[in-house]
Amino acid sequence: MAQPRTGRIRTTYELVAGSRRMALVKARELTVEQTVEVPAACVPPASRRMVGRIEALARHGARGWRVRCSYDPAVVGDALLQLLNLLFGNASLGRGARLADLTLPGPLLARYSGPAFGVAGLRKLCGVPQRPLLCAPAKPIGLSGAALARICYAFAAGGADIVKDDHGLADQATAPFKDRVARCQDAVCEANARTGGHAVYAPNLARGGAQLFDDLDYALARGCRGVLLSPLLIGPDTVRAVAARGDVAVLAHPTFTGSLLERRHGIAPAVLYGTLFRLMGSDAVIYPNAESRFPLTLADCLAINHRLRAPLGRLKPALPVAGGGVDAARVPYWIRRYGRDTMFLVGSSLYTQRDLRAATARLVDSIRRSSDGAGIEDHHVS
Amino acid sequence: MAQPRTGRIRTTYELVAGSRRMALVKARELTVEQTVEVPAACVPPASRRMVGRIEALARHGARGWRVRCSYDPAVVGDALLQLLNLLFGNASLGRGARLADLTLPGPLLARYSGPAFGVAGLRKLCGVPQRPLLCAPAKPIGLSGAALARICYAFAAGGADIVKDDHGLADQATAPFKDRVARCQDAVCEANARTGGHAVYAPNLARGGAQLFDDLDYALARGCRGVLLSPLLIGPDTVRAVAARGDVAVLAHPTFTGSLLERRHGIAPAVLYGTLFRLMGSDAVIYPNAESRFPLTLADCLAINHRLRAPLGRLKPALPVAGGGVDAARVPYWIRRYGRDTMFLVGSSLYTQRDLRAATARLVDSIRRSSDGAGIEDHHVS
Repeated sequence: MAQPRTGRIRTTYELVAGSRRMALVKARELTVEQTVEVPAACVPPASRRMVGRIEALARHGARGWRVRCSYDPAVVGDALLQLLNLLFGNASLGRGARLADLTLPGPLLARYSGPAFGVAGLRKLCGVPQRPLLCAPAKPIGLSGAALARICYAFAAGGADIVKDDHGLADQATAPFKDRVARCQDAVCEANARTGGHAVYAPNLARGGAQLFDDLDYALARGCRGVLLSPLLIGPDTVRAVAARGDVAVLAHPTFTGSLLERRHGIAPAVLYGTLFRLMGSDAVIYPNAESRFPLTLADCLAINHRLRAPLGRLKPALPVAGGGVDAARVPYWIRRYGRDTMFLVGSSLYTQRDLRAATARLVDSIRRSSDGAGIEDHHVS
Repeated sequence: MAQPRTGRIRTTYELVAGSRRMALVKARELTVEQTVEVPAACVPPASRRMVGRIEALARHGARGWRVRCSYDPAVVGDALLQLLNLLFGNASLGRGARLADLTLPGPLLARYSGPAFGVAGLRKLCGVPQRPLLCAPAKPIGLSGAALARICYAFAAGGADIVKDDHGLADQATAPFKDRVARCQDAVCEANARTGGHAVYAPNLARGGAQLFDDLDYALARGCRGVLLSPLLIGPDTVRAVAARGDVAVLAHPTFTGSLLERRHGIAPAVLYGTLFRLMGSDAVIYPNAESRFPLTLADCLAINHRLRAPLGRLKPALPVAGGGVDAARVPYWIRRYGRDTMFLVGSSLYTQRDLRAATARLVDSIRRSSDGAGIEDHHVS
């Protein structure tokens, strides 16, 4: 085929299909379903270039095929949500198709501003030039804003770099949004003033629509420099819009994304958290770590880390945040695996130690010791 | 147990678990993971009432259990996204848990305005007091705004009740949003003026954040009375915010929701499309119909229809929209199955007939004939 292949959106899907012929049928359906969504005979000349091209097809395991497709970026324009439609919109409604890889052309990437802070910006914000970072969550729901603020104080005074709201904290009567944010932000500032630290408090913005921007303006006015957003709930393009302002660091939470991670139908974790969450503008991306109560493997996590940090047009690298029940005692182990440019989200393992400030201080010491000197390097998978 | 059970959020999950003991462990994890998310020993007294209660546990098939849980609505406050967190937030990141049923208490339901138009309002808007409604999609991407407007004209002149943008139409260079919306809306108005019809044009709002409300204001200023929204992309609470305005009918599209429909892990289609999409404020809900290229069964679809139409606090009933490749010739069959309060989304089957206006007129005639007289009644499943 003579047409140029550069500058196209490139996807790789793993398809459940017995024969090569069935795989080809499924791949063709995919390239039509996700674009023009009319029978081949009804595609008008002006729309032909919108249909995806099948570039290659190869066996993948006993019951599957890997198919590489490519698309004209004109399908998407600069609409992030239309990119998601293209990648796994109606295809999600079928079965046995998993987006395993994604490469976006430079001119399309240039339409997204991506992370406003990125790894370097977050490090500067938190005053941590080199070592891995620590994030601690204020919870549980049911506590008052004042009680949550005391927890924030303890984490910040103990040396946590980011103190975030639990993603379940919304505007409950027990801790209304404005009161909670004001108290928690003040508590973290007070801790910083006393210890000389630079902890950042990131409230959870869980009310959508126009309210989100009112909540954000309130948090910024109170002095917050970071926020927690759940992209699949608040909306991916809302995350993009918040990040595009450039005045607040975005910490992304994986809640509600889990059904996308199914092995035979969904989106590979590295593509979802590593590429798409970064494209939305997340400066730091929380994912459920391997060897936890969640099913991601070490290879999945290394691949997420790699995609968050690797070159992606002119988008800044984002910080991987290993979460989901990371044990404080195991953090040195994970630092050896994941390298310096990592944040650890440690919650339960601190709470069970009761004295949150002392437990946090011990963990930060352990992070410092583990990342001093020689034993650590950044591990990248290709 | 002496505590009152009324007024609680009630969920039923199907859990993959071998033994009763394992099912109980998994159920307990669920009630903690989705609420306080700290080890039992660390739950402070103020948060104890936030932990879910296990109400009943029963065998479900050879490898599963059905567990009924209940939650204090204080967990949620009035935050829709926190309700989604509670139902399938971090639980989505695990495996083998499916939300099979959901009942919300009256006071919680009263916090949501739900559909602004509902079935009766949509019927009034479209001037269709009794028969099933017809929705036709303007596509494919690649066409100019002018070409899409000609398609809209043909559908409206043929008698379609709602003419909607393809959900892939965003702000592509081939048909920029403002130009497209202006032309398509004008075309539908012109068709209405010539035929005396009341077709409604529903543009797709695919740009999130604050831009969404600018796009909505533009569409309203041009005279649009309906919009297409993809809840899982634009964000569920954004749908709620749009519906809460009360000045535009919301047609919800299921794109990107499919991985939630997995049989062993996810959300039952009736709960997702029937209860949650309605709670968000969708006046009409498109779902991928049975006997199509998508895997929903007839029982799934009947259950969705039922939940959209059945009493739900003071929320208006919403209109089920069977889509995903409905054959025009099969519409009478589906009318017998689904009853009058149904909309049919028919695309490819009209496009293959080339003369869109004539094909649409034939289909509307067929709908009229199929819903006249005796042979049809509303089928509800319990």
